[in-house]
Amino acid sequence: MKEVLAVIRMNQIGRTKQALVDAGFPGFNAVQVTGRGRQAIEAEAVEALNQNPEYATEVLPLLGRIPRLIPKRLLSIVVSDEQVERVVTTLIRTNQTRNPGDGKIFVLPVTETVRVRTGETGRVALDEMTG
Amino acid sequence: MKEVLAVIRMNQIGRTKQALVDAGFPGFNAVQVTGRGRQAIEAEAVEALNQNPEYATEVLPLLGRIPRLIPKRLLSIVVSDEQVERVVTTLIRTNQTRNPGDGKIFVLPVTETVRVRTGETGRVALDEMTG
Amino acid sequence: MKEVLAVIRMNQIGRTKQALVDAGFPGFNAVQVTGRGRQAIEAEAVEALNQNPEYATEVLPLLGRIPRLIPKRLLSIVVSDEQVERVVTTLIRTNQTRNPGDGKIFVLPVTETVRVRTGETGRVALDEMTG
Repeated sequence: MKEVLAVIRMNQIGRTKQALVDAGFPGFNAVQVTGRGRQAIEAEAVEALNQNPEYATEVLPLLGRIPRLIPKRLLSIVVSDEQVERVVTTLIRTNQTRNPGDGKIFVLPVTETVRVRTGETGRVALDEMTG
Repeated sequence: MKEVLAVIRMNQIGRTKQALVDAGFPGFNAVQVTGRGRQAIEAEAVEALNQNPEYATEVLPLLGRIPRLIPKRLLSIVVSDEQVERVVTTLIRTNQTRNPGDGKIFVLPVTETVRVRTGETGRVALDEMTG
Repeated sequence: MKEVLAVIRMNQIGRTKQALVDAGFPGFNAVQVTGRGRQAIEAEAVEALNQNPEYATEVLPLLGRIPRLIPKRLLSIVVSDEQVERVVTTLIRTNQTRNPGDGKIFVLPVTETVRVRTGETGRVALDEMTG
């Protein structure tokens, strides 16, 4: 089993949730985080200015003081090993705009899963839809 | 070492915290998440209606529009391998109502733990009570 | 690859963020958690009383009722194996006051990293500055 962690844009949570359900992964958790990647902040500011050039005189002098941590959503989905590729593909397809700030996906090993209601463990405790 | 992650109901945090301390695990972190499991949401709505049938006329037409992500608590407890079973048993005993929405437990490998105050690493840096 | 998780004091986030950037780790996520360690709470109350002895008559009777979960920041930084030591050293140097409550660091294995914008995987998708 693996935990797939995805850091995505705040405004992508709805589409991503729906895409995961449609792909057969109805179970996941989300939390708001603040994050920064290597180049995301300056690039996002420039992108915003490109879309709203009328704010250039106000925004440009502030660039150095723009908060460096920006709100993101962190999604966690635990799936079996052979489902990782499908989850990752779904997350990329839904969140890739090709602009800085699209986010990151991390895959971590999980040694056990337990459904508290029944005490079931292992693959049967995962929230995957089975065919 | 292992990280035990438990997604539990919001209103179980107090009892769970006390049960963990009583079982010898005083150190943990908690964060609020929003989550959904495979069947939890519809079942919880029906459960709520069963307990409050007087709201049926208001609630039933809204069912399709009820937000699908519900607030949960995510607990993280890092323990030695041989303590995992005791933590998991404690979490199940405290959170199992046999109703949908009881939550999930995930166990992840941890390769190192450091206590920042002393720089101690490994098992001595864990928050287990030793006998 | 490894995920370095650090639970630190709320008021250390600014200094820690800067120290990570200076050490060549510009990419990370942060979330607010509530946590407790083995001895942190009582010790912190005593420390506070030592600094403000005039509140002793008010505070001492409340000790047993002081909330046991205190707000902390949880940082997550994903790096290559050979960078773990540098991240951990940076985190200790920035957060070690030698008082209870300095926090914990956990290291977890990561099997894959993907940059959503480009689809790049592996080391090239990490946010380390390369020399």
